[in-house]
This record gives sequence, C-alpha cells and structure tokens, in this order.
Amino acid sequence: MCDGRSRKQRTTSRGDTVRPLSPIRFSLPACRPQAALLALTLGAAPGAAWAQSAVQLWGGVDLGVRHVGNDAGSQTRMQSGNNYTSRLAVTGSEDLGGGLKASFWLEGTVNATGGAFGTGASIWDRRSTLSLSGPFGELRLGRDYTPLFRAFAATDVFGYVGAAGMGTLYNATASTPVARAFGSGATTVARANGAVQYYTPRSLGGFYLNAMLAHASGGPEAADFHFRGVRAGYAAGPLDVSAHAGSTRIEATGKHFKVYGLAGVYTGGQAKLTLGAVRMDYLNARQTNYTLGVDWRVGAGQVRAAYHYVDQSGFAADGSSTRGNDAHVLGLGYVHNLSKRTALYGTAAFVHNQGKARFAVPGGLAGAAAGTGSRGFEVGVRHMF
Amino acid sequence: MCDGRSRKQRTTSRGDTVRPLSPIRFSLPACRPQAALLALTLGAAPGAAWAQSAVQLWGGVDLGVRHVGNDAGSQTRMQSGNNYTSRLAVTGSEDLGGGLKASFWLEGTVNATGGAFGTGASIWDRRSTLSLSGPFGELRLGRDYTPLFRAFAATDVFGYVGAAGMGTLYNATASTPVARAFGSGATTVARANGAVQYYTPRSLGGFYLNAMLAHASGGPEAADFHFRGVRAGYAAGPLDVSAHAGSTRIEATGKHFKVYGLAGVYTGGQAKLTLGAVRMDYLNARQTNYTLGVDWRVGAGQVRAAYHYVDQSGFAADGSSTRGNDAHVLGLGYVHNLSKRTALYGTAAFVHNQGKARFAVPGGLAGAAAGTGSRGFEVGVRHMF
Amino acid sequence: MCDGRSRKQRTTSRGDTVRPLSPIRFSLPACRPQAALLALTLGAAPGAAWAQSAVQLWGGVDLGVRHVGNDAGSQTRMQSGNNYTSRLAVTGSEDLGGGLKASFWLEGTVNATGGAFGTGASIWDRRSTLSLSGPFGELRLGRDYTPLFRAFAATDVFGYVGAAGMGTLYNATASTPVARAFGSGATTVARANGAVQYYTPRSLGGFYLNAMLAHASGGPEAADFHFRGVRAGYAAGPLDVSAHAGSTRIEATGKHFKVYGLAGVYTGGQAKLTLGAVRMDYLNARQTNYTLGVDWRVGAGQVRAAYHYVDQSGFAADGSSTRGNDAHVLGLGYVHNLSKRTALYGTAAFVHNQGKARFAVPGGLAGAAAGTGSRGFEVGVRHMF
Repeated sequence: MCDGRSRKQRTTSRGDTVRPLSPIRFSLPACRPQAALLALTLGAAPGAAWAQSAVQLWGGVDLGVRHVGNDAGSQTRMQSGNNYTSRLAVTGSEDLGGGLKASFWLEGTVNATGGAFGTGASIWDRRSTLSLSGPFGELRLGRDYTPLFRAFAATDVFGYVGAAGMGTLYNATASTPVARAFGSGATTVARANGAVQYYTPRSLGGFYLNAMLAHASGGPEAADFHFRGVRAGYAAGPLDVSAHAGSTRIEATGKHFKVYGLAGVYTGGQAKLTLGAVRMDYLNARQTNYTLGVDWRVGAGQVRAAYHYVDQSGFAADGSSTRGNDAHVLGLGYVHNLSKRTALYGTAAFVHNQGKARFAVPGGLAGAAAGTGSRGFEVGVRHMF
Repeated sequence: MCDGRSRKQRTTSRGDTVRPLSPIRFSLPACRPQAALLALTLGAAPGAAWAQSAVQLWGGVDLGVRHVGNDAGSQTRMQSGNNYTSRLAVTGSEDLGGGLKASFWLEGTVNATGGAFGTGASIWDRRSTLSLSGPFGELRLGRDYTPLFRAFAATDVFGYVGAAGMGTLYNATASTPVARAFGSGATTVARANGAVQYYTPRSLGGFYLNAMLAHASGGPEAADFHFRGVRAGYAAGPLDVSAHAGSTRIEATGKHFKVYGLAGVYTGGQAKLTLGAVRMDYLNARQTNYTLGVDWRVGAGQVRAAYHYVDQSGFAADGSSTRGNDAHVLGLGYVHNLSKRTALYGTAAFVHNQGKARFAVPGGLAGAAAGTGSRGFEVGVRHMF
Repeated sequence: MCDGRSRKQRTTSRGDTVRPLSPIRFSLPACRPQAALLALTLGAAPGAAWAQSAVQLWGGVDLGVRHVGNDAGSQTRMQSGNNYTSRLAVTGSEDLGGGLKASFWLEGTVNATGGAFGTGASIWDRRSTLSLSGPFGELRLGRDYTPLFRAFAATDVFGYVGAAGMGTLYNATASTPVARAFGSGATTVARANGAVQYYTPRSLGGFYLNAMLAHASGGPEAADFHFRGVRAGYAAGPLDVSAHAGSTRIEATGKHFKVYGLAGVYTGGQAKLTLGAVRMDYLNARQTNYTLGVDWRVGAGQVRAAYHYVDQSGFAADGSSTRGNDAHVLGLGYVHNLSKRTALYGTAAFVHNQGKARFAVPGGLAGAAAGTGSRGFEVGVRHMF
C-alpha cells in the first residue's frame, strides 16, 4: 500500500476503471500512521492510498452593484467579480521525490450574478495546467495567463477587474490594435490555450524568467494564431521589476500583433506602488498604455488609487488616423477587510476620452458618442473560500 | 498564521495569484492545535490557514423511469430528479466574529440521465449567492429562488418535481398568464438573477419576512425585466403560514406580471398537511392555482397525496376567452426510505383538463388534443450525498 | 444524530432546503467517536451527520504534444488525454446495511489544452449514474459505457486514447458502419444515455454478465435510438475472456446497427496480452475490427505495442463497394512511471490504408487522399489525482 512502488491504473473484470484515489479529506504523507489511514480505508476508494496526496477545492464569490453613467444614459446592475473574479478551482500536487513535483490546476470563472460560466462557456477558462517542477524550475503545459499579462496586470492595483481596472483601456474600441488583431474577441492578450511554459526556479538571486510558446486553438478563445512571449525580471526585498515582449501571429492575415512592456511594483511598509507601460502594435496602429497605482494599508482597510492612460497613434483599418484618440481613467477605491477572506469594497471610476476614443467603464449603456466620458460607482462584498 | 489579522490576497513574484486556502479536508477552528494543522500544512496551500473554514461539496442523484400516456400516445423515458432534483453544490461560510457571518452557495442542476446541465446550460443554475448575516438578519446577493416560489413550492408535497409536482399547472399552455408574460420560457416564477434579498433574523417570535429586488439579466433565463417580491409569515410550533406578493415588469411590453398568494404548512406527529393558493395576472388573463397536500409518515415510508387545481379566466393574447380552461391534477406517491439519504419511490399522476386546457404530466408525447387528460407513473431511486 | 433512524429532508421556515450533508472531509463510520465528530460539527452543515458517508473528488490531467504527418502535410498540437483522458469526477457510496449499497458516479472530460468540456458541452459526459448493489449484483441507472465498449476497449493496451488507440479504426470514414449508422456523430458505440444496467455479483465463480437497455435521448449524444446490449465473460486467475453483442435501433431509419465481439485479456507476471475482435453491421455495410496488444512491465516503465486492423466489406450509402477499404495501425509506446499517479509517456502510431480507406492518426491535417497513410508521435505527462 505504502511501499512507494510504482503502480499502473487497474481495470476490474467489469471494465470499470478503478479511480486512482479520492484524496479530498486528508493531505496524506506517505505511510501516515493509523488514524488517518483508518479514515481513508473507510472510503470508497478501491485502490491503495497514494503517497503525499493533496487536492484543494477553493474559489471565491464577489458580488456588487455598479452604477454606470455616460452620454447614452445610466444603468445599474449587479456585477460579479468587482474586487476578485468569482471562481471555483480544483488544484493539487504530488511530491515525486528528488525535489521533483507534479501539480495540476483547474480554475474557472463563476459569473455569480446568474451562476453561468465565464469565457466561452468553458468550465476551466481561467487556467487548466499540468506542471513538472524541480531544481530546474517549472515546465507548465495547458491554458494559462501569458507572461505579458502576468506582468502588466500586476501593475493594476485594481487587479484588472471591476469599475476601475486597467482592462477598460485594453479591451475596447475598434480602432485599437487589440481589437483589430483579434476582431472576434478571441485574444492572446490575457491567456493562451495549449501553451508550453517555462519558469525559472526561485533560487536565482532574485532574477526570474517566464517564457511561453502557444498555439491557441482548442478550448475557449480558439482561433488560428501562434503566440510567443517572455518576461524577465528581478524581485528582491520590496522591489519587483520586469520587462516583457511577445508576438502573436494571426494566421488569417499572416501579420503579427506585438506587445512590449515594463512593470514595476514596490511594496514597502503599508503601501504598494505600481508603475507599468505597455506598447502594442498591429498593422499600422499602435497603442501605448500606462498605469500608475497605489494601494495603501490603513488599519483593516486598503485605500487604492490608479491612473490609467492610453495613447493611440497610427491608422485604423479604414485608413483613418487614430492619433489623439486617447483616454484617461482615474480609479479610487476602498476595501474594508472583515477578515482575511471577506471584505466590503467601494470603487469609483472616471473615464475621460479624447478625440474619437470610446473607452468606457464596463457595465454601462451602449451608444455613447465618441469623445464623451463615463463614470462608474460600485459597492459590494468579496468572499474567498 | 493564526492571529486573526486581516490579510489581503498575495501575489508572488511569478504573478501567480496565491489561492487563499484549500479548506476541504477539515473544518478548522481558529488556531486548532497540532494534529489538524499538520495535515493542513502538508497540503499545497501556499497561504496561511484561514480561521474557521468550512466548505461543503454535496448534492444528490435521482433517477427513475416514467411512463406517460395521453391522447397522442404513450412514452417511457428515464427522468432525472423525480423525487429530488439531481444536483451538485459547493457551499461554505465563515464566522466573522460579533455574530456576523459570510457565506456562499453555488448549486446547480445535474441532468443525470445524460450528465448534462440544467437551465440554460449554466453550471450553478439553482443558486449562486453570497450572504452577510448577523443579528440584523441576512443580506443575500445573486441568483436564487424568489420569495414567491419559496412560499408556494413549500405547499407542494411533491416538491415541485416529478410526475405529480405542482409545476405541471405553472409551466404550461400558451393561454396562461405565466406563459404569456414569459413567452421565451425565461421567467421569474421560480428564480431571479442578480437579486438583492433580505431575510429577517430567526429571533422575531416566529415572524419572518423575505424581500427581493432583482434585475433578471445575465446568466440563465436572462431577459429584460425587473422583479420585486416579498413574503411575510409566521412559523411557530407545527404551523407555518405566509402571504406573498410580487411584480415583474416585462420591459419589452412595459406591462407587469403580478403574483399574490397564501401558503400554509402544518407539521404534526407523523403528518404534514399543506394548503396553498396563488393568483397570477398578466394583461387580460388570470390564473389561480390551488394546492392541497398530505405527507404521512408510516414506518420507514412516506405516503403522499396532492390535489392541484388551476382556474383560468380573462382573455388570451388572441382575444379568445380562457374562462373554463381549468385543470385538476391528482398525485399519489410512496417514498420508501432505505436510509436518511437513499430512498425508493413510486408516483402516479392524473391530469384532467377542462375546456381548451392542455396541461400534461411532463415527459409525454406532444400533440395531445385540448381538453384531454394525461397520466403518468414513475419509479426510481434517490440518493443524497 | 447517529441513531440510524431514517430521516427525510427538512425544509426551514425560510424555505431553504436543508442540505443533507457536507461529507467531504472525512469518510465517517456510523457513530465515529469524538475526534472526527468534532470536526464535522464545526462545519456549516445544518443537518445531522449521515452514517458512513464517503464522497470523493478525483480525476486526472494529461497533456502532451502530438505531431501528425500525412498526405496533406504535418501538424503539431498540444493534445489532452493521450495516456489517460483528462477528467474530473465526484463519486460516493453509502452502506445501507444488509449488504445493500447505494452509490453515485459523476465523471466528466476535461479538455485540458483549453479548459473546455468534452462531449457535447456536457459536464458529466463520461458517466452519470446511480447504483443499488447487493448480493444480487448491481442495478445501475444513467449515462455510462455500453457493455460492448467495456469489452472491446479493454483489449486496447492504449486505452482507446492517444495517437495509437484503437479508436482510430472505430470513428472514421463515411463508408464505415459506425459512421453510417450515426451520421451526426451521436453514437451508442461508447456510451448511452438514460440506460438501465445490470451487473452480476462478483461471487459467481468467475462468471460475470453485464446487460444494458437504453433510450439514448437527453444529454450529450442525444438522438432517437434504442440500444440493447449484453456482455458475458469469465475472469479467473490471469485470464479474462468475454463475448458481447448489441443492437441499436436508429429510429430515423428503423434499421438496426449491430455489434458482436470477443475480448480476451491475459495478465501474467510482468506482461498483459490482449486480443479482441468486433464485427459491426449496418444496412449493407460491415466492418470487422481486430486488436492485438501487449503491455510489458520493465522496472518503472511499461512498454506497449498494439496492432489494430479493420476489414470492411459490403456497400456504402452511395452503393459503392467498401470491400478492400481496410487499414492497419501499428502503435508503439513507452510509459515511464514517476510515481503511482504521475508518468511520462511517448507514443508512435503508423496507419496504413488500403483501397479507399481514409483512417488517420487523430490530430492531423484534413484532406489526405484515400489510401494514403498517416504517422503520429506524441510525448507528454499524465497526472492522476
């Protein structure tokens, strides 16, 4: 049972595949003594106990009400995931000995206002990976954040979600490089399917690197493109700085969507300061996004402020210039922590468009005129489990 | 680790969001001593243990075979959820101190005949909520039953499911107010998305109140309507009586679908007796539903009988009178409890239509003539886990 | 709490259904003493503890990269489930006393390359069943493998998955009986919805029988057909041999798709040898599939080799002869077990088509000419949890 011998999957004479284990109950060290084994033996698991099992079921539910006003009118709706994307995850790992570890991660969005899925009606749309890690670092396979997103999202004190998240300036109008490269909404901006990733180990004196190759077909956000990206950084003491670059080849056009950026996070005392810059090019259009943020600890609370700015230049698909179609977002928020897991929050966001820009606080009415602003306010509750 | 200090979510230098916890294994009191912490520490949870975690994974699988005969012929099919809707749920709560509690509830239908989803291909179609509760009562956000449904479904001894459930007289023909108000099948009869609810605390001498405001867009059964509803009641000793009223504004028409009702349940000795009346109005049509039921405990068994009646009046959308398109349902059932969780059941249901009514036992062939009856019989097994 | 009395589901005055239990934490014997009950009581479960609960959350993630070359070119893609279908499952059972047991099984495919579902966007597409078992054997209701699939898949040392699985010769070209009978892709070849199954007990001196009746509507792969199938076998010592036969009535045509087969598995010392033959008839077409396999244990590794062959005869729907449209598949693989749960694998598969056959290693480019071959190579990691 507990002899460490390798064992393949068994199949009974009935043809039922014997499930390898049912580990949710205990994280069981190899050959744990009687008390734990008793409980395990009583379970329905037809096989033997695996060594050092650990599976976690965890997630969060975040619901709030957001009011968004713009040129087209105002609208109030319940929104899921304003402070923390509502989600459910099953994760686990196994110590293989010799410093080697296998781990899996299945994590999906819960649209908690109505109980629906997130992206593309997929259950594990946030992450679906299998990793082997050891002294050499980590090799990770499957759907995951791109190294680029890990870098620039880290500079958003609003975590890329809610009324004031930086996503407002990445997702929007038809003239932006993001929208032009990925007209269908299918993107490799945040995540990629079928990716092979490498992470350096934590022992490089603060230096780290994350590289990804992906062919983003299959699963949600499927489309015919190839992605290559890398992030390299240095994290020591209060400082974490990194640079990233990536390219997505859009097979339908044969053109490349390119992203370059710098990210810096300083965490000292009660405050976290963030600074980020990202440039994106596709065909003849360019957008450059800047973010500046602060998250200040005040007792049980966190005061957050962010300034996001997008600068567009070049030409849209119809040949019109996008120069000057810029936008500014000011975000202000307060998070009151009731516990480590549960918090109340309130956020305000102000979007100021220039030129023909049409960026907007998410959740408002469609149809606002180009160059007009939008404002959003939200209050809600976040619970992690 | 266990000092009760508030702690925000951490992000590693890799950009991986540190998951807050992996609590399924133990329900862990704050600072539980060594034995439990040992097991927890062995887990892959990169963060500290949260205080007083408790997450549950639970549900039920109920499968049976139903034979339904009507004017169009007869049909025999396996059906899921005849005695208890087959489902899977993840729920949990956290004690925040000072009598305050946060809790979440994700629950979805399992169509166990084929492993598919329930309503609208949504995973958590039954309930997706986040609550804050305390001495003030409970504030609940998200998708949930309406207060109206909680009241009238409680008077159905068949639990609104199976061959003999009262749903037969709520869901059906095109001339009913329910069908007219929600032509697409999208309804606020049972549940609403994006709802804000309030429940009184349990300490009001038996009096209770549940009020809901909802904008039912997003998630399954999305459509453009607003819902307001309230239920007020008194529960003491064997008696539980309540009145409810609600209104749904259908934005497409600007008209209101209105529901009023009374519900009473008496639980004494081995018997439960139920009585309910619900009136529904939309445009020029009205239906009034009545239910009378008994659930009698006999040893390990339960004998159930219900009489459901619907009285229609007013006019259908095409101007024809619906007066006299009434229907009677007689339901008889026996549940044999093999344990607290597992039971065998058998149910018979007889629908008698008057006038041009077309109500029918679910699961039969389509195309029966107006005014003709239908009969259904089912046997099956229910297991809760 | 622990008195074994039967108890029905409770409903609070709020109308919240009290969930029966939250058993994932401990597999709890009836009236287990203090230590375990303490933990359970601390949970949020509002009901009492059920006796002998056991619920398991388990599954696997398997990701690899496959290169497939054929007449149309070559393609390299990440694939999920090459050695073991990536999956998630929730299962459990309850001892009802007197040798009687109730158990449920919900198991679904995870397309781990992108986090999506498997068959038909259903969550529990692999199995969704409820069973009662005892000295009489097992009665199983719901979606499951057919007895036929259990028999012939057991003879594939590659487990019907990956580059070299026997599925290559079951799923393919339009002229085969399988494809003709189930033009839409909806099949009862592997699984059936809404099935009633019987399994003999394990105490019949090695003899066993599995019979299924199903009406495969509802859930994934829904279509209007009826299935009947049976498998009878003998398993003793190293030997497991069985015969199977089944018939699917396609309601749209009124015709029957028929399957007959023999399966043998010999497991001795370090080796497993398999041999299978399956004949399928539909209208005027016939295909006969043969499989020969070996799985040899070498230290921590397994060397696998399989030869699959399909022989076609009769006529396709357009009246053309299918005689001689045969194909051979040679599969070679090595699995290196890093632990009982985690393995590295590499597989090579070679398909040789004759006549107008178009069978192909899955995952390649479409458009290869009839009669041309295909080759596939894959490497990956499999982790069960």
